[in-house]
Amino acid sequence: MSVLVVGSVALDSVETPLGKRDDVVGGSATYFAAAASLLSSVSVVGVVGEDFPMGELDFLRRRGVDLGGLSSVRGKTFRWRGRYGFDLNAAETLDTQLNVFEHFSPDLGPQARKAERIFLGNIDPELQMRVLEQAERPRLVCADTMNYWISSRRPQLLQLLPRVDVLMVNDGEIRQLAGESNVIKAAHAAQRLGAKAVVVKRGEYGALLVTGEHRFYSPAFPLADVTDPTGAGDSFAGGFLGLLDRLDAGDTAALRQATVMGATIASFTVEQFSLDRLRDLDLSQVRRRFDAFRQLVHFDELPEHIG
Amino acid sequence: MSVLVVGSVALDSVETPLGKRDDVVGGSATYFAAAASLLSSVSVVGVVGEDFPMGELDFLRRRGVDLGGLSSVRGKTFRWRGRYGFDLNAAETLDTQLNVFEHFSPDLGPQARKAERIFLGNIDPELQMRVLEQAERPRLVCADTMNYWISSRRPQLLQLLPRVDVLMVNDGEIRQLAGESNVIKAAHAAQRLGAKAVVVKRGEYGALLVTGEHRFYSPAFPLADVTDPTGAGDSFAGGFLGLLDRLDAGDTAALRQATVMGATIASFTVEQFSLDRLRDLDLSQVRRRFDAFRQLVHFDELPEHIG
Repeated sequence: MSVLVVGSVALDSVETPLGKRDDVVGGSATYFAAAASLLSSVSVVGVVGEDFPMGELDFLRRRGVDLGGLSSVRGKTFRWRGRYGFDLNAAETLDTQLNVFEHFSPDLGPQARKAERIFLGNIDPELQMRVLEQAERPRLVCADTMNYWISSRRPQLLQLLPRVDVLMVNDGEIRQLAGESNVIKAAHAAQRLGAKAVVVKRGEYGALLVTGEHRFYSPAFPLADVTDPTGAGDSFAGGFLGLLDRLDAGDTAALRQATVMGATIASFTVEQFSLDRLRDLDLSQVRRRFDAFRQLVHFDELPEHIG
Repeated sequence: MSVLVVGSVALDSVETPLGKRDDVVGGSATYFAAAASLLSSVSVVGVVGEDFPMGELDFLRRRGVDLGGLSSVRGKTFRWRGRYGFDLNAAETLDTQLNVFEHFSPDLGPQARKAERIFLGNIDPELQMRVLEQAERPRLVCADTMNYWISSRRPQLLQLLPRVDVLMVNDGEIRQLAGESNVIKAAHAAQRLGAKAVVVKRGEYGALLVTGEHRFYSPAFPLADVTDPTGAGDSFAGGFLGLLDRLDAGDTAALRQATVMGATIASFTVEQFSLDRLRDLDLSQVRRRFDAFRQLVHFDELPEHIG
């Protein structure tokens, strides 16, 4: 079993009410790989510039992540600068510099082509499609997207959707894609457009899985200390796909567990800046919090005499 | 066992993307009673004006609700006018007319004084305290409040909190009360101020119960058709307290079930305007949806070899 992620590897500058970091490692592929590698074998396809501190990814190598598809080219790494307000719920993007990412075209090596599960990070849907064209035997494809692609690359996105098993987006994105304010109706509309299942990520409010008439809700883990929400969504995806790959399953019972695993790993991500919390995280800590999720949502049946 | 609610009985004018209603029955005590009466005996203490269509509350009488404490006085009924936007998440208040509610002072009759569980709807904390002074043997007190009282009646609210078993507020209110943006920390702060437990209502995102170090999360029931969110919070409180009264319990297992019962009944409330959905609702329908909640959040343990 193995997982492939294609997406950004970035240098982020982030400001939250809890502090501030400049030029720290970020990017969708990086967060995804840090999470998924706790559970399975991961290959990364992406691009960085000469300024990227490759040593920062040594912890991924130690976890067996294949970084052969991460090419280093002339120029500067993709940079994002953002700020979170009082309630840490939404990032305000202050600056985006695509740099070497502007001319990125994913090129899958032999190992990456054989990946059985693929995460298409939030990049141009045309590039996401190019990944699928190179993949030899994907058994499950999970894709993220964003408002920009939904409006500016709609035809390409609509072409991609029938090849997507799990579309993983937030409330605003699913509403925009479907042109429908009710999230359940919007998820059903996305399924009519071809996505087999939809996971709606809702930040501190959890995540909703919709597949056919089947619905599952996982809360986010309630944390007293949240430092930086950056990367929560991509590490959610990493936990999700990493567990499906580890279980080698894609039925609804597995999708439910995967949603909770996504929420579990995302809850660690936000405890510290950048990838800091994910660096030394191990699977036994993850498992303990996954188990705590069961306690968090457990309630007893009603006595028979009621109703 | 019996439940007392003290709060508003109102005429609402509401506009949502799904439609519009003028001068329909609303108010915290009304929604609470419509929900709680599905589970237990309820007394209402409040006030209406001569213009109030008392026949609209006949369905409550038929469910055994004691409306003896609902006095009808000269003048006009409390009126609220509001509008919900695209995502139905937040009401914009267009107009509030206190009318007869302005000089309301709760006066508990013999049955109301004996109530074992009390819901203090969102009124001046001084009046909430006056209710408790008249109650003979309350075993559980649940209170709502709002931004206006938190800022303008803070000393009175702080006096009340040590007598509150369950403080039931939304994210913004618990943050404002505690002066703390993290909801878990804010809930702990409210407990240090005296409230034994806190339920944070999060609308379509569910509800979080915090008592000591104990945490429970119930999602909202995912609905494809939401018509009008008005009254969701008060019918949540009605389901919550109605079930605790029916179970005659207040331990954490019961509080968890009560939170889900609150979410269950609130999910019916929002399906139609005003009290329309609650009028003909029966306990067997409620039970079926409560049971569906178990399915909604269920996931299997991880296999032992993981972690």
